[in-house]
Amino acid sequence: MAATTALLPIALTAQTALTPPDSVFGYKDFSTQAKIDQTFLAVPDAKLAGEELKTLTAVPHIASSKEDYATAQYVAKKFKAAGLETTIVPYKVWLNLPAESKITATTADGKPLMSGPTPEHVSHDPFQDDPRVIMPFNGSSASGDVTADVVYANYGRPEDFQKLADAGIDIAGKIVIVRYGMNFRGVKAYIAQEKHAAGLVIYSDPADDGYFRGDKYPNGPYRPDTGVQRGSIQYMFKYPGDPTTPGIASTPDLPMSKRIPPSQATSQPTIPSIPISYHDAAPILEAMKGATVPHGWQGALPFTYHLGGAGAVKVHLVLKQDYQYRTIWDVIGKIPGTEAPNDWVVAGNHRDAWVYGAVDPNSGTAAMLESVHGIGELLKQGWRPRRTIVFASWDAEEEGLIGSTEWAEGHADELAHAVAYFNTDVGVSGPNFDASAVPSLKEFIRQVTKEVPSPKGGSVYDQWKKQQDQRPALGVQEHASKESAHLDNDVEIGDLGSGSDFTPFIQHLGVPSSDIGSGGPYGVYHSVFDNYAWFTMNADPTFVYEQEMARVFGLEVLHMADADVLPYDYVTYAREIEEYIGAAKKKAQTEGLTLDTSAAEDATKQFLAAAKAIKAKQDHPSGNDAALNTSLRATEGDFLSAAGLPNRPWFKHTVYAPGEYTGYAAVVIPGVNEALDAKKAEQAQAQLAVLTEAIQRAAATLEKAGE
Amino acid sequence: MAATTALLPIALTAQTALTPPDSVFGYKDFSTQAKIDQTFLAVPDAKLAGEELKTLTAVPHIASSKEDYATAQYVAKKFKAAGLETTIVPYKVWLNLPAESKITATTADGKPLMSGPTPEHVSHDPFQDDPRVIMPFNGSSASGDVTADVVYANYGRPEDFQKLADAGIDIAGKIVIVRYGMNFRGVKAYIAQEKHAAGLVIYSDPADDGYFRGDKYPNGPYRPDTGVQRGSIQYMFKYPGDPTTPGIASTPDLPMSKRIPPSQATSQPTIPSIPISYHDAAPILEAMKGATVPHGWQGALPFTYHLGGAGAVKVHLVLKQDYQYRTIWDVIGKIPGTEAPNDWVVAGNHRDAWVYGAVDPNSGTAAMLESVHGIGELLKQGWRPRRTIVFASWDAEEEGLIGSTEWAEGHADELAHAVAYFNTDVGVSGPNFDASAVPSLKEFIRQVTKEVPSPKGGSVYDQWKKQQDQRPALGVQEHASKESAHLDNDVEIGDLGSGSDFTPFIQHLGVPSSDIGSGGPYGVYHSVFDNYAWFTMNADPTFVYEQEMARVFGLEVLHMADADVLPYDYVTYAREIEEYIGAAKKKAQTEGLTLDTSAAEDATKQFLAAAKAIKAKQDHPSGNDAALNTSLRATEGDFLSAAGLPNRPWFKHTVYAPGEYTGYAAVVIPGVNEALDAKKAEQAQAQLAVLTEAIQRAAATLEKAGE
Repeated sequence: MAATTALLPIALTAQTALTPPDSVFGYKDFSTQAKIDQTFLAVPDAKLAGEELKTLTAVPHIASSKEDYATAQYVAKKFKAAGLETTIVPYKVWLNLPAESKITATTADGKPLMSGPTPEHVSHDPFQDDPRVIMPFNGSSASGDVTADVVYANYGRPEDFQKLADAGIDIAGKIVIVRYGMNFRGVKAYIAQEKHAAGLVIYSDPADDGYFRGDKYPNGPYRPDTGVQRGSIQYMFKYPGDPTTPGIASTPDLPMSKRIPPSQATSQPTIPSIPISYHDAAPILEAMKGATVPHGWQGALPFTYHLGGAGAVKVHLVLKQDYQYRTIWDVIGKIPGTEAPNDWVVAGNHRDAWVYGAVDPNSGTAAMLESVHGIGELLKQGWRPRRTIVFASWDAEEEGLIGSTEWAEGHADELAHAVAYFNTDVGVSGPNFDASAVPSLKEFIRQVTKEVPSPKGGSVYDQWKKQQDQRPALGVQEHASKESAHLDNDVEIGDLGSGSDFTPFIQHLGVPSSDIGSGGPYGVYHSVFDNYAWFTMNADPTFVYEQEMARVFGLEVLHMADADVLPYDYVTYAREIEEYIGAAKKKAQTEGLTLDTSAAEDATKQFLAAAKAIKAKQDHPSGNDAALNTSLRATEGDFLSAAGLPNRPWFKHTVYAPGEYTGYAAVVIPGVNEALDAKKAEQAQAQLAVLTEAIQRAAATLEKAGE
Repeated sequence: MAATTALLPIALTAQTALTPPDSVFGYKDFSTQAKIDQTFLAVPDAKLAGEELKTLTAVPHIASSKEDYATAQYVAKKFKAAGLETTIVPYKVWLNLPAESKITATTADGKPLMSGPTPEHVSHDPFQDDPRVIMPFNGSSASGDVTADVVYANYGRPEDFQKLADAGIDIAGKIVIVRYGMNFRGVKAYIAQEKHAAGLVIYSDPADDGYFRGDKYPNGPYRPDTGVQRGSIQYMFKYPGDPTTPGIASTPDLPMSKRIPPSQATSQPTIPSIPISYHDAAPILEAMKGATVPHGWQGALPFTYHLGGAGAVKVHLVLKQDYQYRTIWDVIGKIPGTEAPNDWVVAGNHRDAWVYGAVDPNSGTAAMLESVHGIGELLKQGWRPRRTIVFASWDAEEEGLIGSTEWAEGHADELAHAVAYFNTDVGVSGPNFDASAVPSLKEFIRQVTKEVPSPKGGSVYDQWKKQQDQRPALGVQEHASKESAHLDNDVEIGDLGSGSDFTPFIQHLGVPSSDIGSGGPYGVYHSVFDNYAWFTMNADPTFVYEQEMARVFGLEVLHMADADVLPYDYVTYAREIEEYIGAAKKKAQTEGLTLDTSAAEDATKQFLAAAKAIKAKQDHPSGNDAALNTSLRATEGDFLSAAGLPNRPWFKHTVYAPGEYTGYAAVVIPGVNEALDAKKAEQAQAQLAVLTEAIQRAAATLEKAGE
């Protein structure tokens, strides 16, 4: 139990107060924690969150800029004011900024079709004309000056490129134009590069986040004609972070001899790539000839789309990337634990933005600052956490999860027994709460959300469930995957793929992780229009969802820091793995591949039995559960394999990884499933053996703890 | 057996010749018929069909025009040349032509948005500038001069209007703008009128038959920006034909005292309606305000659609209809039967077109003329049919199935024992054969198509099956319904709804009917661009599908005219009715309505048993089957009810009708299903009793014939 003095609860307003639960998983007696929670919940302030958001997003603040450093100082000041032991941690990392970006298109006989990029502009926006706005570009793009015939490849998925091949279109030497959506943009570049395309143009089709979805900014939340989605094409499904230091931290004093040359970094594309608006893409697509596109490829621009490759349009790209070692700044704020100071609860959000980043990421930053504000109030009242709390404001997430990856790589030893990593990136783009997590944390998150009031009435959990029950067909979803095993009738929580800073924690180091956010129609992702004006018009005008997110995020941290027994639910974990193995078995059968799953099934049964036994122990904390907690935490670590995944050894988790060909979306039991997808039966069997050993290790750990 | 002399088969080309079947349902010995078929099949000529099509579509020839009369004379000449007893049969019917059509739109503060209609025009088309092209209008529209706020109602289906009501939008006094597709345009008008809209604007959205589907004319088959779908909004689901003479023929000498005043005709809308292009609709839709549209309502124009009703746009319609009694001309060609001259086989196609009508309807006319050509060759060789053959070239189909309805009403006594009506309307818009029919004729049609070679190799049947197995998601389908009961794994044949000239035959008079056509991408429906240039570019450049259709249509006629036993399959009919009753029972349960289906189920069992017994007799023709044939034909007539459907007594068939709220699509056991849809349990039970009696009558007729 954490050392506390008498706490003075500040009452929540009558409309929002919820009765705290009598008991919560992990606590011997929840009543003391309930009072701490009430005190905490009363602090996060909607108006303050709005002011913090306004300050953070006042000017463009891309990673490594002096404006970025100013936001680091601002966050550090807030951390310190709350009583956190705060440091600004610099790293020196290999980053590009655009020196020149040009795209022109002409007809076969040289008639000009377009010349861009056209500046992002709408009728009314107070932020668009700041000279510090970085021109649209793709992080990790190569430089290049190429002129070529152009081919349209839909979303740039493997199956899209396959359809082009089936239609007899060779993209070697061509410029490929693809639309955003359905996968991580780095995957689009990866396949285009594999197939020897000369260059890549990625545009936002109005079908996916523009007028086809709803009114465009400034009349609504969707992407206006000139809005461009910037973004990294780094092959972070190979490894994220500084491309020159996989597995180690890019500290400023790291000698060059320890770095690999950028040209040898397998996470760096060799293809030049540019993101453009549909304003600029339309004249190219409209002039293209060749076969009309297959079913499902037509977007919402007002003409028939064609595959191209017929020589009707030549595109000329001139892309000069200014690559340098640049300094970025994480901000780390600690509250030492009283009883288990070496057991860290890490909670993070990135701070850097492509431009203003009102939604992505500073809606999360403001929420985190109000979480810190609440915890600071507890500290003032004398409360101290049982375990050490670490708040982190990451830098250079946009370029490739760089600030979080470098810090995690540098703290691998401490994190080997960190009890959780809680992430929030897009904190608020609307009123719909959603989460992804490892299975062991799903019930934990549900319980937390039952304690937090929703601006719509009832609890966050109540509204979350209601919204899931009515969930319409969704459009593009960047940070969430909905492929969990659906084991019960409760609120679904997605699996962790990639696309934000939880990746190094769960997938490289095996720290139990989750990611939360509150979503809504959001068509200005990574454009100049993701700013405070858009935010207050569309996402959260009164910042009440900021307040909600601050409360949920803070409660995650508090409960994990103070629980008697670590509230990991390994029964659900076992059941999900069981489902994954069953699905892989079925897939192998469908594909006519031999896969013997009996050993894996046996191991999973063993794991499930051990999980059930340990659950009985977790349900009755003794108040002196240090040994049990050590085992519980070690179990997640057992899922790591030392060798990592085939061809991408940085990814060590045997159950969750970002898909090599999806990027954001999680692939479950990735070694097995990706081998099956590649029709490599032997490799699938070998990877299943690796997984089986991991499950056996985890089962043995739980069994030993249950003795 | 029909009287024949020795026939001299003309060989089909080696590529296309198929081996005739050994036996065919309805024939004691098929070998003689097989020779007749071979002789017939060799005659229809692709090149001649092309010439006939070119002649028929040389100038615009709307019903009642002198150009229309010229096509009647041309068809009559062809009929006579083939040896048919030919007459041109005039009717005097109530028709509108447009005297003035104007649509303008302004913003709330009077700023002009558009003024139309814009003339139909593309970069290259040799037909578009003929001064005889009729301006776009809706047949049966009221005149009117109205100015009102505008509301968007998607496809104008009942569920669309319901969604507007749910959104709190009252359309009374408003102008409603709807898009074409998903139902008959008269239904859009009918519901708008029911809800007291001031006027109706119907436009073609590019999502449905424009650039969203594929390249637009002249680069492809889809609708260009200015293309307008003309069409009738007559409430032909009440009754088709001359609105002033329901149930009787509008002969030129019919006294006015026998006609009802047009203002009392329930098939005549009172709402003014205009069809426009998306070129003209776009500025209206783009300027509309109000809520953004629900999921599925957004079309392919490049902006977000709104429901309107917010006063942002005023539309002004000025529509002057020139209504008069006008003369139309059917062409009727007979070949008297040798053995059963009173048993008619009727085969028809309409001839009138909104403009040039290359696809709709003259692709069917050219095919019919080549069928007649082939049968003329048989006549020259001395062959005579057993039953009387009647070929019909209908007029004023476009305005409301008028030529066919008036002729059928005038020949109700003879048609009471006509053995079949075979229709083709859109004969050819592409290479994909399809058919609709009463269940008793489905197997008959499949057998016919097995004898006809396809230009793609194999038989028409083979290609039809292949195409159905691969059938992609289809767009708008005007003349076919795909709601048959799917009883076997064979090629599916749709149910007969409405939308072409089979309606008076099957649904008013109980003549077993079918409709055939060969389809493909066709976005110029009812526009000036449905012309010979479009046809030879997109539908059938070498007229080989014209030839195919001539062969199938002719073989339908020949087999029905000469079969020993009428080849009606009542086993399938019984099984389909069984399915319909089962589905209605389920629907009633779902809706919580009481419906006792036991008597209907018993009657259907009785009918099925009788059908099986009679099938055994049909399988072994005696060669002297006159009495059996009379009973077989009487069975379909038994499905008529004297009272007709509730509120629309003209529709007498108890198993098939066009839906009152769908228009084209068939509603099966319509009395029952429409009562259930209206949640009227008592009426459903009463209509089920009417159906049950009909089934009992049919069963008794077959039982008696089986004795």
